[in-house]
Amino acid sequence: MLEHCCPLCQQGLLQAAAYVYDAQYNRNIPFETSPKAVRLYYLYNHWSMQAATYFFIFVDLALALFEEPAVYLLPFLGKYATSLVEVLCLLVFFGRLVHFAQVTPRSVFWKDTKNICIMISILVTLIDLIVYGALRISAIRGIRWSRPLRPIFLINFAESRQIRRAFRSIRNTLPEITYVFLLFMFSVLMFSLMALKLFGDRNLKTVEGSPYFTNYLEIVFNMYVLVTTANSPDVMMPAYDFSWWYCLFFIVYVIINTYIFMSVFLAVVYNNYRKHLKNEIRKLAYMKRRKMIEAFNLLKVKEGAEFVVKEDQWKHLVKLVAPDISTSHRELLLRISDEEQKGCVDKKSFVRLADLLNIQVITIKLHSHPLDIWFPHVYNSTPSLCIRSMVRHKGFVWMYDVIILINAVFIALDEKNPYISYAEWVFLCLYIVEILLKLYTYEPRNFFARNQFWNWFDTSIIIAALIATVLNTALRSVTIYNSQQVLDIVFILRVLRLIRIIDSIQRFRVIMNTLINIMPTMLTFGGLVLVVYYIFSIVGMEIFQGKVKFFAGNTTTPHALYCGNPALKDSTFARAKYCKNNFNNIASSFIVLMELTVVNQCGFALVTHQAAKLYFITFHIVIVIMIIKDELLNGKLLDNMETSENDLGGEEGTTKKKLKGLMFKIASKRYRTVDALLQRMFEAEIPPEEEGPSLDEILNLSPNDAYPKNPVFDNAA
Amino acid sequence: MLEHCCPLCQQGLLQAAAYVYDAQYNRNIPFETSPKAVRLYYLYNHWSMQAATYFFIFVDLALALFEEPAVYLLPFLGKYATSLVEVLCLLVFFGRLVHFAQVTPRSVFWKDTKNICIMISILVTLIDLIVYGALRISAIRGIRWSRPLRPIFLINFAESRQIRRAFRSIRNTLPEITYVFLLFMFSVLMFSLMALKLFGDRNLKTVEGSPYFTNYLEIVFNMYVLVTTANSPDVMMPAYDFSWWYCLFFIVYVIINTYIFMSVFLAVVYNNYRKHLKNEIRKLAYMKRRKMIEAFNLLKVKEGAEFVVKEDQWKHLVKLVAPDISTSHRELLLRISDEEQKGCVDKKSFVRLADLLNIQVITIKLHSHPLDIWFPHVYNSTPSLCIRSMVRHKGFVWMYDVIILINAVFIALDEKNPYISYAEWVFLCLYIVEILLKLYTYEPRNFFARNQFWNWFDTSIIIAALIATVLNTALRSVTIYNSQQVLDIVFILRVLRLIRIIDSIQRFRVIMNTLINIMPTMLTFGGLVLVVYYIFSIVGMEIFQGKVKFFAGNTTTPHALYCGNPALKDSTFARAKYCKNNFNNIASSFIVLMELTVVNQCGFALVTHQAAKLYFITFHIVIVIMIIKDELLNGKLLDNMETSENDLGGEEGTTKKKLKGLMFKIASKRYRTVDALLQRMFEAEIPPEEEGPSLDEILNLSPNDAYPKNPVFDNAA
Repeated sequence: MLEHCCPLCQQGLLQAAAYVYDAQYNRNIPFETSPKAVRLYYLYNHWSMQAATYFFIFVDLALALFEEPAVYLLPFLGKYATSLVEVLCLLVFFGRLVHFAQVTPRSVFWKDTKNICIMISILVTLIDLIVYGALRISAIRGIRWSRPLRPIFLINFAESRQIRRAFRSIRNTLPEITYVFLLFMFSVLMFSLMALKLFGDRNLKTVEGSPYFTNYLEIVFNMYVLVTTANSPDVMMPAYDFSWWYCLFFIVYVIINTYIFMSVFLAVVYNNYRKHLKNEIRKLAYMKRRKMIEAFNLLKVKEGAEFVVKEDQWKHLVKLVAPDISTSHRELLLRISDEEQKGCVDKKSFVRLADLLNIQVITIKLHSHPLDIWFPHVYNSTPSLCIRSMVRHKGFVWMYDVIILINAVFIALDEKNPYISYAEWVFLCLYIVEILLKLYTYEPRNFFARNQFWNWFDTSIIIAALIATVLNTALRSVTIYNSQQVLDIVFILRVLRLIRIIDSIQRFRVIMNTLINIMPTMLTFGGLVLVVYYIFSIVGMEIFQGKVKFFAGNTTTPHALYCGNPALKDSTFARAKYCKNNFNNIASSFIVLMELTVVNQCGFALVTHQAAKLYFITFHIVIVIMIIKDELLNGKLLDNMETSENDLGGEEGTTKKKLKGLMFKIASKRYRTVDALLQRMFEAEIPPEEEGPSLDEILNLSPNDAYPKNPVFDNAA
Repeated sequence: MLEHCCPLCQQGLLQAAAYVYDAQYNRNIPFETSPKAVRLYYLYNHWSMQAATYFFIFVDLALALFEEPAVYLLPFLGKYATSLVEVLCLLVFFGRLVHFAQVTPRSVFWKDTKNICIMISILVTLIDLIVYGALRISAIRGIRWSRPLRPIFLINFAESRQIRRAFRSIRNTLPEITYVFLLFMFSVLMFSLMALKLFGDRNLKTVEGSPYFTNYLEIVFNMYVLVTTANSPDVMMPAYDFSWWYCLFFIVYVIINTYIFMSVFLAVVYNNYRKHLKNEIRKLAYMKRRKMIEAFNLLKVKEGAEFVVKEDQWKHLVKLVAPDISTSHRELLLRISDEEQKGCVDKKSFVRLADLLNIQVITIKLHSHPLDIWFPHVYNSTPSLCIRSMVRHKGFVWMYDVIILINAVFIALDEKNPYISYAEWVFLCLYIVEILLKLYTYEPRNFFARNQFWNWFDTSIIIAALIATVLNTALRSVTIYNSQQVLDIVFILRVLRLIRIIDSIQRFRVIMNTLINIMPTMLTFGGLVLVVYYIFSIVGMEIFQGKVKFFAGNTTTPHALYCGNPALKDSTFARAKYCKNNFNNIASSFIVLMELTVVNQCGFALVTHQAAKLYFITFHIVIVIMIIKDELLNGKLLDNMETSENDLGGEEGTTKKKLKGLMFKIASKRYRTVDALLQRMFEAEIPPEEEGPSLDEILNLSPNDAYPKNPVFDNAA
């Protein structure tokens, strides 16, 4: 078919493939339909282009490590190197934007806030760079105030859809959260007022000797910190020491403001999240349907009463959309799409293609063992068979579990004993023998198949341990210098080897697999946290840099006692040796923010000026909202996974097909992201014939008309 | 009808009423059907008997306050008073049990673990009392080891159904949680091993000067505490000070063990909870259905083709079941049950009776204002009308909001200024005038109706403030002695008055109402926490009593510096003046446990011997499981409330009926407990005609056959 409708048909095919590609990856990039634009669109989506974009975003963010105050000073070109690299990054971002402008219609391009955002950020950063450079030349120290804008590139480039959606969802929750937050703040203010009246005139002293609860603003701050439970017994002790009954005040306060308000926050966020997510997912589902129908309309041919897509057109399409899947996989997809083998695919089956392409299919090729092909006599001899059945036996696994346990004991024992040092070699050999035996017994390509997580994990740990141990021994024997870094790595690898024992227990394996499955959601959350941390640490660095100094353990300067800041003399902060918790460079800032996330340890906030408290409170609020969201997401995800396991129990059988001696199986019945799951659930609700509302309508769907009783558009079938 | 079938019919009516009563309150007490047993059953359920049981349970638990080590020593009879009271409590419990044995068939009574539990507890406590008394007489100090058993009475008396269900649900979750917990512990052990190898040989020192990370068991404990984030930066600082990179180890540890494992815990608990709750609710719903059908069968009369219950039988029944509802309310129920006014109630409507009785109906009687009746001329004169319209005006509310804000400022100002002291009187007068004006304008009985929470709150606060202020002034002028307690109360009441401002803002009112609605669930959780706290504080008291002593601020003994325990010399615990955090009496123990719940501040654990750590870790695990459960419950409850608000939007209209000049309205569309909501949802799934499985089958339902495709029993209609 393809050969006798060349240029136009080829163009239609390309365009249809672009539509299917968009539907498969849930993208929504309206592109122009000229041949050039479609070809540019392919280039735009090429993995190398996307990887390059991510690389430069990463470089741009990583610049903070080398800029003043630097964690590592760049050896060459000095302080201008970072500026040069930043200009390069901006050029790349601009190029990417120009490329995108070529693909998408002009009107759409200028309406998209993402593009405007990127452009403004590039411009602002350039201005900042020029001003900073000019000031530097005239020897004035300027502030690089545009640096907190850098995460905008991470959020706004089209590839970071997940992070953007998470941000949008947080933004949607804000209005409702605000009311709960105001009520919460009202409660804090009321309690603080009560505390002022109750304790203010008692002449009580804190542990540090300062007056207790006499300044209203300070009380409010202390009570806020108490909600985070960071100063839990300390803030209460003076009042409690004074009278038994006053601790009731604090207990009531904690119950109301920590537990009850947290429940309400959780409920509000969850409700709102659900409401908006449903709408987003509905949009995506309609969008996907529409893209697939547009692709179908480009390729359709009338056959009998209905329109269909011919088999070879379909094959060309799949080849274009997913060039890296095997021929047999493609055959399988065709077999599913064209169940009656009519040589064509109807509309209903065609629409399902985007989902079919998303199913991860693992080709289990029933190879023979290479040794069986090369030396069949040796491989099938009695001793060889005996070894193979031994390795397959359960006792083999148990034996190695016992070895691992013994190894754990040996690791815990003292390293200095030479016999234990030798034992390490014995264990290493045992593990290597195990892997070799397994490779001898099982077919290597199956052993290292993509879904054999534990085999990969095992082998890489053992090989790394082997290399590190050899390196360590070599270094020690040659230079007498015992490299601490290498030794540390050896220790870590040795302990990691023990994790293997989890794999032997069925229940643990299930939990571990669940954990591995939620990783993508975790990564999205990680991206979000990175953005927040980055902004806060750049801002924190500009404000607090140099306020607290760390002196290494062997210095004898008196400054070391109060972290180089006289205001910290005799403070709990200095006494607990927290001097290294400072904002002197981006790595330290990250670590301080991490500590604040775990426990809102505001000792640091108390030592700098009042306005600093604002910084810490803001950070705490932002991080609490994000963590609540994440907990919900994960809880929900795991929860749904359990449910869907039952629901889809029967499906596996239908999609597992035997074809030309190959075995296929669906890699995972579970959904890897909440999105995929919810979308699937929602799609089940749309009747297969329905085309859904038009594009403009889809984009303007509001969460309130979540269930249109009478769908207006029904012009599909 | 009732008059000409006297004794038997009367008996049937009584029994039917008992069934309906059980169905209404979701109770399942199989009782004998003899007239005596039914009458005893009524007595058993009488509110006074239930209140007495709760009172004695409370007294029994409160005994710990007066027993050695006492918070208050009883002035008379000395140490034997508590034993006497305890014997009295045990007698009451035994009496209640005997009463129950009379009501229920013998075979059922002896099968019920609740009853066995109570009996064993009574017996064990008696033995303990005798042994303790005997030891006391021979002047040996014994341990009252049966005291942790006391909460058993709270859990096992039939009235505490909610708490029992919560406990059962926790018990059901345990097996699945155990696996996650084991994996979690494995991870902690692995990381500890790694920490030992990485930091053990570095000769690092903690802030307190002891060697850092050299003992494996101590590392495990520290790492466990790090999961609770209680020792967050401290445990990390020595390694972080030594090298920048080591803090990565701690960051990875916290991410994996605090955040990821928490998510998994949450998901497992939630799933399990949902699975089992569904089953419980299904049991309850079937049970209710069955009870109602049995009641129906006792009263049914054949009329035409179907069985019905005659109207006056029905009225007698309702009068027996709910003696305190008004005649008009009963008429309303009848109107709903007998919609076609046929003078009888059919089976389907009869079954709904239990639910109808549970709906809180508020009778809005459109009374005239009493002043309108007594002095109509004055009340309807122009100035009076003017005042009334003024009070009804929005500006009136705003004016008082402004007054409240000004009052807040005055409260924050210094009390010693006499003008501000006078201003207090002005504000108090203004508030009293407001209430009087409102009472003048609105009908007092409507103003103080049962659902007018804010009016009640307001008035009681103002009256209490008035009394306290007068009392305070009187005390000051008479005795020159300024009673601190009264003054404290005055302060608190003054601040509480400010809460009123919330009522003016619609969004805040909604959130507050939601909070008030979840109170019942909160109380169940409170009961659970009470049980756990009680057991742990009694045990803690026996183990740690006297280990740490508190000396009041003005003592000069050197012991005060280390809380009377030489082991605490120079510890952070003593330096932070935590001495009052001890287990020397039950009140202190409760407060320490509260602090441990908020932040696992294990400073205390570190100073006593190793085994004490076990106590703290156990407590932490138990409390974490409970809090996770509670968060879920509340989140779920609030969530469902929002949803059901929409679902039931239309229903209010149907049940709001005008009858004989009275207005009824359903008090709250929202469900007050998760149970009620879920039950309602499940009941909607059972077809109205179905009778459900038999009693034995209901009791043996397992969560796995949650959806029987083909219900076996269908012999109802």
